[in-house]
Amino acid sequence: MKIDGVRLGVAQAGIKKPDYDDLTLIELAPGTVTAGMFTQNAFCAAPVVVAKNHLQASHHRPAYWLINTGNANAGTGEKGMQAALASCDAVAETAGVSAAAVMPFSTGVIGELLPTAKILAALPGAFAGLAADGWQRASSAILTTDTKPKLVSRRFDIEGAPVTITGMAKGAGMLCPNMATMLAFIATDARIHQAVLERAFRHAVDASFNRITVDGDTSTNDAAVIAATGQGPVTIGDEIQPAYQQFIDQLTELCIELAQGLVRDGEGASKFVTVDVHGGATTQECDQVAYTIAHSPLVKTALFASDPNWGRLLAAIGRAGLNELVVEDVAVFINGVLIAERGARAESYTEEQGAAAMAGQDIVIRVELNRGPASAAVWTSDLSYDYVRINAEYRT
Amino acid sequence: MKIDGVRLGVAQAGIKKPDYDDLTLIELAPGTVTAGMFTQNAFCAAPVVVAKNHLQASHHRPAYWLINTGNANAGTGEKGMQAALASCDAVAETAGVSAAAVMPFSTGVIGELLPTAKILAALPGAFAGLAADGWQRASSAILTTDTKPKLVSRRFDIEGAPVTITGMAKGAGMLCPNMATMLAFIATDARIHQAVLERAFRHAVDASFNRITVDGDTSTNDAAVIAATGQGPVTIGDEIQPAYQQFIDQLTELCIELAQGLVRDGEGASKFVTVDVHGGATTQECDQVAYTIAHSPLVKTALFASDPNWGRLLAAIGRAGLNELVVEDVAVFINGVLIAERGARAESYTEEQGAAAMAGQDIVIRVELNRGPASAAVWTSDLSYDYVRINAEYRT
Repeated sequence: MKIDGVRLGVAQAGIKKPDYDDLTLIELAPGTVTAGMFTQNAFCAAPVVVAKNHLQASHHRPAYWLINTGNANAGTGEKGMQAALASCDAVAETAGVSAAAVMPFSTGVIGELLPTAKILAALPGAFAGLAADGWQRASSAILTTDTKPKLVSRRFDIEGAPVTITGMAKGAGMLCPNMATMLAFIATDARIHQAVLERAFRHAVDASFNRITVDGDTSTNDAAVIAATGQGPVTIGDEIQPAYQQFIDQLTELCIELAQGLVRDGEGASKFVTVDVHGGATTQECDQVAYTIAHSPLVKTALFASDPNWGRLLAAIGRAGLNELVVEDVAVFINGVLIAERGARAESYTEEQGAAAMAGQDIVIRVELNRGPASAAVWTSDLSYDYVRINAEYRT
Repeated sequence: MKIDGVRLGVAQAGIKKPDYDDLTLIELAPGTVTAGMFTQNAFCAAPVVVAKNHLQASHHRPAYWLINTGNANAGTGEKGMQAALASCDAVAETAGVSAAAVMPFSTGVIGELLPTAKILAALPGAFAGLAADGWQRASSAILTTDTKPKLVSRRFDIEGAPVTITGMAKGAGMLCPNMATMLAFIATDARIHQAVLERAFRHAVDASFNRITVDGDTSTNDAAVIAATGQGPVTIGDEIQPAYQQFIDQLTELCIELAQGLVRDGEGASKFVTVDVHGGATTQECDQVAYTIAHSPLVKTALFASDPNWGRLLAAIGRAGLNELVVEDVAVFINGVLIAERGARAESYTEEQGAAAMAGQDIVIRVELNRGPASAAVWTSDLSYDYVRINAEYRT
């Protein structure tokens, strides 16, 4: 769980409400390299702009990650930029590092000015609390409407020596992934070149966090960062080394575990749904079909009702925009039960089978396009009363 | 209201439940020309395939439109095709016309086989009831989950002689326009060439029904048809005649009135929302912004809560995929109140203003992109508990 070279401290700044962990400081020992992935939204929040700038300016060697919840500092214009920079300045001054060595992250309400004074007042407490075993408390402190923390750690051997990767994430709006704020903070004790770390992380993020969202359709604040302290015994070489493959596999699995945890804890989610599309001509068209299904409000409400509504599934596939789709070639399965083929309900299908397949919490919708070798999967959840309640009440 | 040359008959076939108007027959007098627009969904329903074929085969001069509710005859494969054709055959036999002169339309549950026997048994009643004043009853008989009929009629003079256009539509799932079945049946007594009628109708549909849905993202059953009987005193010439311009304006306004009626009666809709985007470089990018806002579940739930959540609006604009969007140039108004500019909440804005602007049922969200001369508007509604309830319960 602990990562040598990483310490975490949590404080209560009272940003949105009193007596509540809402400020997390993560300290990265000298020598640590960091890679980050950020939202593509044109309205990206002030902390995202600053975090990207500081990551560059510190030559990918930031000394601190500062995370607040309760306020996203997004849609706050020039004042928001100043607020984000002021928080970094305060950390830098206390720690005796340059402000560019501090990366800020914010999540919470959009459009309210970040209460910098509250953050500054709470910072000494966060510094005082810095500890290598702070992951557990921090994984709760970074949450917004999530109902439980997502914290994953993996320890494995490479050529007989141990490597540890630990990560935590917050999400919550995953029913509507495009605008949910997703944050992920990951660290490893492996020694690895920053450029290699960045490539490995991009691969892992593409196979995990980017599978629960549409490319580019991210929120104003999304960010995922990874730090490699190099304080462990293992050095990861470049891509041709077996050690690299082991590392990237472990990192990817850890990210998938975190990403799936975000979906399971999605706002109002009662189902965990894998949409698995096979037999496409290209990965891109598999993605089109998978995301059209995953984003369809009619499919999502049917999932909420445990209704194996294959008609809505066929309709979603039909409007996914595939060129010359032959509907007679398409087959659809729910948890292994063939429900539709040749453009209609499967002959063998019974409502009882469908009801049984939908009864559980975990649903796999498999689509066979039968027109090529490609495949793609995305993870999503259903659309429930609670989703509407949470999002209609969030600001009030 | 009445259109000379058009008679309508309604019957109770008991397709989904007994004692319920669910079958409508519309008779078009000889000499009538028809134009139609149909769903782009690859999984288009059997009646859509047949209706398109018969429109061609009859040289755009069908004699009957047959509409059933309670069953969409979609996702029903080869048997569904046979069922649609059997209905046409039955109408043709009774009327003494060719089967190709009958266009079928179905709406209701997807994936259940059309109960042809019930339709055949009810057809004599529909024939017996054919009457020129049947519009009112028919406008109710074509509904599914709509709560009220949408029936509009316009009478106007062209060069001193009267023209009448009457139309009715059904929608209901307009919160999720991509998969709702929209049907519209329009008739006029004007005399007009089929090719000219088709161009006029395409223009009117693009400015109305296609403004409440994404191009190509239509349901399995969407169809809009117009018939011109030529039994009135007015002849509409081609596009260079003033009469054409008057006709197309009236037709477009009638279609807009029907389309807006569909949104107002959308499933679970409590708000009628116009998203009006100005100052784009192209109409297409205005559409991108308008539809991203109109489809955002987070914006829609905020609308349901009467929450002027400009942060979610900015975030939606930011992820609409515009090249090099300068967020500082964007301004957002709700019912005339400036709520956001320069990437942040407007200085002049107060929560009281926002609450007042959101209090009514009709909401106009105006976005000023300030980067070009183009504009576009779409109509949508909010996302409510009732939307989830209706769509989670629809099949059960």
